[in-house]
Amino acid sequence: MKFSNGARGGTHAYPVEDDMIDITTASGQTDRNVKNHHHEEDDNSTHYSSTFGGIHETADIPGIGQYEDFHTIDWQRDIARDRMRHRYIIKKKQDSVWSLIQGAHDAWSGWLCVLLVGLCTGVVAGVIDIGASWMTDLKFGICPQAFWLNKEQCCWSSEETTFDTGKQAFWLNKEQCCKFGDKEQCCWSSEETTFDTGNCSQWRTWSEVLGQSRTGAGAYVISYLFYIMCALLFAALSASLVRMFAPYACGSGIPEIKTILSGFIIRGYLGKWTLIIKSVGLILSVSAGLSLGKEGPMVHIACCIGNISYLFPKYGRNEAKKREILSAAAAAGVSVAFGAPIGGVLFSLEEVSYYFPLKTLWRSFFCALIAAFILRYINPFGNEHSVLFYVEYNKPWIFFELIPFIGLGIIGGVIATIFIKANLKWCRYRKYSKLGQYPVTEVLLVTVITALIAYPNPYTRMNTSELIYLLFSQCGISNADDLCDYNRNFTDANSAIEWAPAGPGVYRAIWLLILALILKLIMTIFTFGMKVPCGLFIPSLCLGAIAGRIVGIAMEQLAYNYPKNWLFSGECSTGYDCITPGLYAMVGAAAVLGGVTRMTVSLVVIMFELTGGVRYIVPLMAAAMASKWVGDALGRQGIYDAHIALNGYPFLDSKDEFAHTSLAADVMQPKRNESLAVITQDSMTVDDIEALLKETEHKGYPVVVSHESQYLVGFVLRREINLAIANARRTVDGICGQSLVIFTNSNPPQTLGPPHLKLKKILDMAPITITDQTPMETVVDMFRKLGLRQTLVTHNGRLLGVITKKDVLRHVKQLDNEDPNSVLFN
Amino acid sequence: MKFSNGARGGTHAYPVEDDMIDITTASGQTDRNVKNHHHEEDDNSTHYSSTFGGIHETADIPGIGQYEDFHTIDWQRDIARDRMRHRYIIKKKQDSVWSLIQGAHDAWSGWLCVLLVGLCTGVVAGVIDIGASWMTDLKFGICPQAFWLNKEQCCWSSEETTFDTGKQAFWLNKEQCCKFGDKEQCCWSSEETTFDTGNCSQWRTWSEVLGQSRTGAGAYVISYLFYIMCALLFAALSASLVRMFAPYACGSGIPEIKTILSGFIIRGYLGKWTLIIKSVGLILSVSAGLSLGKEGPMVHIACCIGNISYLFPKYGRNEAKKREILSAAAAAGVSVAFGAPIGGVLFSLEEVSYYFPLKTLWRSFFCALIAAFILRYINPFGNEHSVLFYVEYNKPWIFFELIPFIGLGIIGGVIATIFIKANLKWCRYRKYSKLGQYPVTEVLLVTVITALIAYPNPYTRMNTSELIYLLFSQCGISNADDLCDYNRNFTDANSAIEWAPAGPGVYRAIWLLILALILKLIMTIFTFGMKVPCGLFIPSLCLGAIAGRIVGIAMEQLAYNYPKNWLFSGECSTGYDCITPGLYAMVGAAAVLGGVTRMTVSLVVIMFELTGGVRYIVPLMAAAMASKWVGDALGRQGIYDAHIALNGYPFLDSKDEFAHTSLAADVMQPKRNESLAVITQDSMTVDDIEALLKETEHKGYPVVVSHESQYLVGFVLRREINLAIANARRTVDGICGQSLVIFTNSNPPQTLGPPHLKLKKILDMAPITITDQTPMETVVDMFRKLGLRQTLVTHNGRLLGVITKKDVLRHVKQLDNEDPNSVLFN
Repeated sequence: MKFSNGARGGTHAYPVEDDMIDITTASGQTDRNVKNHHHEEDDNSTHYSSTFGGIHETADIPGIGQYEDFHTIDWQRDIARDRMRHRYIIKKKQDSVWSLIQGAHDAWSGWLCVLLVGLCTGVVAGVIDIGASWMTDLKFGICPQAFWLNKEQCCWSSEETTFDTGKQAFWLNKEQCCKFGDKEQCCWSSEETTFDTGNCSQWRTWSEVLGQSRTGAGAYVISYLFYIMCALLFAALSASLVRMFAPYACGSGIPEIKTILSGFIIRGYLGKWTLIIKSVGLILSVSAGLSLGKEGPMVHIACCIGNISYLFPKYGRNEAKKREILSAAAAAGVSVAFGAPIGGVLFSLEEVSYYFPLKTLWRSFFCALIAAFILRYINPFGNEHSVLFYVEYNKPWIFFELIPFIGLGIIGGVIATIFIKANLKWCRYRKYSKLGQYPVTEVLLVTVITALIAYPNPYTRMNTSELIYLLFSQCGISNADDLCDYNRNFTDANSAIEWAPAGPGVYRAIWLLILALILKLIMTIFTFGMKVPCGLFIPSLCLGAIAGRIVGIAMEQLAYNYPKNWLFSGECSTGYDCITPGLYAMVGAAAVLGGVTRMTVSLVVIMFELTGGVRYIVPLMAAAMASKWVGDALGRQGIYDAHIALNGYPFLDSKDEFAHTSLAADVMQPKRNESLAVITQDSMTVDDIEALLKETEHKGYPVVVSHESQYLVGFVLRREINLAIANARRTVDGICGQSLVIFTNSNPPQTLGPPHLKLKKILDMAPITITDQTPMETVVDMFRKLGLRQTLVTHNGRLLGVITKKDVLRHVKQLDNEDPNSVLFN
Repeated sequence: MKFSNGARGGTHAYPVEDDMIDITTASGQTDRNVKNHHHEEDDNSTHYSSTFGGIHETADIPGIGQYEDFHTIDWQRDIARDRMRHRYIIKKKQDSVWSLIQGAHDAWSGWLCVLLVGLCTGVVAGVIDIGASWMTDLKFGICPQAFWLNKEQCCWSSEETTFDTGKQAFWLNKEQCCKFGDKEQCCWSSEETTFDTGNCSQWRTWSEVLGQSRTGAGAYVISYLFYIMCALLFAALSASLVRMFAPYACGSGIPEIKTILSGFIIRGYLGKWTLIIKSVGLILSVSAGLSLGKEGPMVHIACCIGNISYLFPKYGRNEAKKREILSAAAAAGVSVAFGAPIGGVLFSLEEVSYYFPLKTLWRSFFCALIAAFILRYINPFGNEHSVLFYVEYNKPWIFFELIPFIGLGIIGGVIATIFIKANLKWCRYRKYSKLGQYPVTEVLLVTVITALIAYPNPYTRMNTSELIYLLFSQCGISNADDLCDYNRNFTDANSAIEWAPAGPGVYRAIWLLILALILKLIMTIFTFGMKVPCGLFIPSLCLGAIAGRIVGIAMEQLAYNYPKNWLFSGECSTGYDCITPGLYAMVGAAAVLGGVTRMTVSLVVIMFELTGGVRYIVPLMAAAMASKWVGDALGRQGIYDAHIALNGYPFLDSKDEFAHTSLAADVMQPKRNESLAVITQDSMTVDDIEALLKETEHKGYPVVVSHESQYLVGFVLRREINLAIANARRTVDGICGQSLVIFTNSNPPQTLGPPHLKLKKILDMAPITITDQTPMETVVDMFRKLGLRQTLVTHNGRLLGVITKKDVLRHVKQLDNEDPNSVLFN
């Protein structure tokens, strides 16, 4: 809607090559150079120059070569168009210096474009991170001297009052701030742990602002109320903005991005309004304390930024080429979401992208790296590690621990399946009931309930990312949380950790965590799919981390209490701690995320980039594998594929194997006893064709030799016939309803009557055909790999029917015992 | 040759489904259930059951569905065959418990197979590493008390005489050895650096063994002679083994692996003799001190191990499926070569593999990880780091350093181009001259020259891996090499490194390094392509590391002498060292390797896994990019593609863009004025067909309705006609030269004379067809993505000609102004 104006509204098609002009002059009358195109009589050069295999540069008919909204693109045609353009530029290059510069710009534009996308993605991600962190803290209190600081920054400024430059430049982290103050030593000496308690005097909770004390029942109630009020305010703002300005900004966007990348047009989905509203709405909805993450929407935001490819005609005017940039942008989105450039590229490759040539791999990597580099430079979280949840454990994992890890994988798969099934049911209910008409009310209701339940439990009250980090981390000397309430005495932070029984704090924490797990699971089911920007990477990781930590503590205490058991006796008899509950949390997190999204390699790489835990690839992999298998066994689809199916998008998954035995003849339209709507090459009048177009609703028509001998000549699109006829009526004298429409080059003798309308230029003379005996698995393979929109079915050269992408999708649904009518678009 | 017996020689095709038996009975006489297969009269079930789209289970004719040596496989057919087999197993599952177990085994066999491949690859890599390290040291001396120890192990055993368990278990590294001796502290206290001088008393150089002193002119001469003798002995053994037992074991094998994975049959290339001889030969040729590496051949060895897939019928009997395992094995090969599992997967994806479905990605990752895990467990090098060249630098890189890094990229690209061009010229000379007939002599000659020149220069005398590690590393307190002869005084190993001018040792080292660079470059040109196992990863890395280190030292001294220059003033004015020459060596190494192989993402990931340098991804990428661009500008192909072209393998590179404007009509056979060899569906006799087969040499023939109306019915392979006719003659009474061959189901009235020969079952009724107007870029795309062997060209339904993969390759060569006759195979 928005981006389409810039990106494709223009009709300035590329000038065609000189020697092609003879065919691009539209009507039969001005046709100054008619050649016979039958193979036997032609030489190669005229052959090519006249019709480049049915791909025509038709500069004279506006709108030809474009797509309508909610339509599937034709990859082969777009890629061929791009090569044509490329050749034109190469040819022009020798003409002038200006053309040479244009040629160089064209060659570089791919790299330039991904560079720009990377830069912008990094900056936008930085802004979102800073905004979300400030507004999240705003629910609890304010920094009265500098309201634009979040709690952590506020506390810094209070502790090192000598370096108050931090106030003037609040985006600097502590290290940079110190450098700014020109005292290099300050940064290295002060430990991060000093800020853990967070009770610095500069930061005021809302109860303090209102004159109450920091503790006590009154303060609690005031804080509670402020928390709920802020949450409501943020959520209301977010939902209203989305509703009013950019309806496409809701949700995580990954299902739609997958569909768009597979070659579908949804206008405005990547427009600039979607970008702005999604960014602002994301900050608001994250701050509202809803059970959602900002990582999925970051992919959508990055793809919106990827849409600046309209600045480069090479990409902006070619839907297939544009998708190369979007693939790179998706990689950059994951890269900034998790600080994981390699994981981002693999995510783009494995999960989102469809057409991923190797050139795109390299560019995606570049784009992801630039984005991560920029984000690290901005350093919104102010920590020195480039990874989000940096953890370091003292002990490596032990071989027998693979058993609980695989167990965690199974638990993760089960949790994920419960989540997917319940969420889908709720989304379907929302879609078909009255609830769908009140999105803002729904958001407010969920926000109030979430806030009411979340606040009393410290683990749900805190930011989800913080909770994950807490669960991942090892109990060290600096960790004062209940979770680390073991009966041990620390003397030295560097000594090995003593083997100790859990104290009462740990048991209390476990109960609270179980409550948090249930609450988060239920709230995420209701939250994902609401009309606010919301992702589910972080909630999934959190669910898994909670489950994992609980299992980890259980294992630890088991090993402590039965150290002589054969399982533990090997490694756990030395008096030192041999089991790290934090590692279990990490593995659990990977398991649930893997079960929900069905990611595999990219998941493991993201987790390893996220935590810096190179040594833990094997446990992560074991859990991810177990979780995926359990998930696949319990329910076929990941959450994204399920949402694609729910919305009826025409997405042909390249991961599903087509395991049925049907033939092309079983799938093609028309079915027996119906006749196929065809156009003949030289015996139908304009009126005949217009009547056919009125009677039928197909997107395109095969052109055959004659009604009697239906040998296939080519394929022509409804849209282009309409445009061409309208154009001819406007520009050529004498064209009327009785004009014969001619798709060949051999000019039939001009009898009396109106002039012929020559439409060979819009005829695709190289349609992909198959025989009726072709197994459907081959057909599906061709649709996927060649990016087809339709294919023509023949038998002994005779045309029998057509198979469109929609037919394939419906057939797959039917064989899977699903409703074939849920495929909505073509 | 070897593997084919196990893998494909058997004729036990899968039992066909019950309802298919009606068509698999061969001859016209026993045909008990003839159905009319015209679309209009059939219902779906019989439709499928009778001919599954031209893919026939023909259990009764031996050899059908197999391929001949040096032929291209038909991916679509093989994949369809696998799905058929899969369906059969699923169906059988309900019959009995045994079938259920078989079904489960089948489902698991992919994972089991890659597990086995990973395990074996890890073990073989460990054996090769241990063997090569022992034999390399054998050139210099021996451990008299335990000749099976290499120098390092020998010195351990001498230093810690209390822990002489190390002698009994020489494969243990120091840490493990200490544990074995049950004194855990010993390992952690002793630093590795103590062994750097290597002058321990237990180890005897050859001059000492012969009663000479360790130093002096006589000792030098004796060592020199022994060095050359050992080198000659090893090289002669290696070359003779390869020549006698396994000619395919020579070279790096990556070009052939690429070709095989793209769907080509080279029997014996992955056989067990190749595996054994390549492993032994690799140890020998590496120990001979030739300028070659063991990393490339490791990929070939891993693929040979991947050939154990013949144990699993799912993979062993299906060439397309087998390639999934081989892709995973290639990933495992790189994984063990560099200790880089993620890099291995990306290498397999980017560089070697052709057909890489996402399932393969996941399995490759698993396989690579298992292999790396096993190798790390074996720990052949005895160091604690899991990476080969682990480096840690004190200082991060500075932004302005990107300029020299890009400069290094350009130098790397130039070196790589010189290497590729010169090596190709030499290989072409070897191929077409008499030299090719004396491979062993050539190897011996090159070995003598290499050894003669290499020994005097300490940098060429040492193991190439050691040299790379030395060049990568930072000058610290423990490094006593000339390269680190700076005028600084170390007091504490942990303090920051002082800013110092280079001493005379550094300049001496630079001259020696320049000599080493020239020598290595020339020797590698002559070495790569000889008839011994040899890879070029390590030589390329070494060339680049030398160039990089020299540039790095130059930069460092520049910054030291002009610290006030605007470039350096920002970061280099603090009195501490701001430039790390080791990092330049690393970047240079990446640049040359990138230029030689044209790897991109996988190169960066391998380098980062190889060195552990996460922070240096940006410099590595900048250099790799610059190098690739320079390489692409100077010479089109990487070394592997150049060798593929040299050998005339039919490899259709999926990275090259087809940028020409030809149409299918220009490429197809036959050319004008020739007639197309076709078979008619029901009017040719056995004699006619045999005459046609004798006259022409095509691999397959289109079947048409009749000679007059050449409408396409199907496609039949020469090999299968021959087999079917021979089989019918043997098994069916009355079949003779006058028998009509019938490819339809409609039975023509049996006139007097011999019975008809019905061959519908070998007819592929779903050949891929295109129109003559199809642009060649689409055709090339179809060949690549669908894995075609040939496609049929039609015009208005009428058959015009055939395009085979060879035609496409020749056409591409012709348009690139290369000799089209260099494409040898089809």
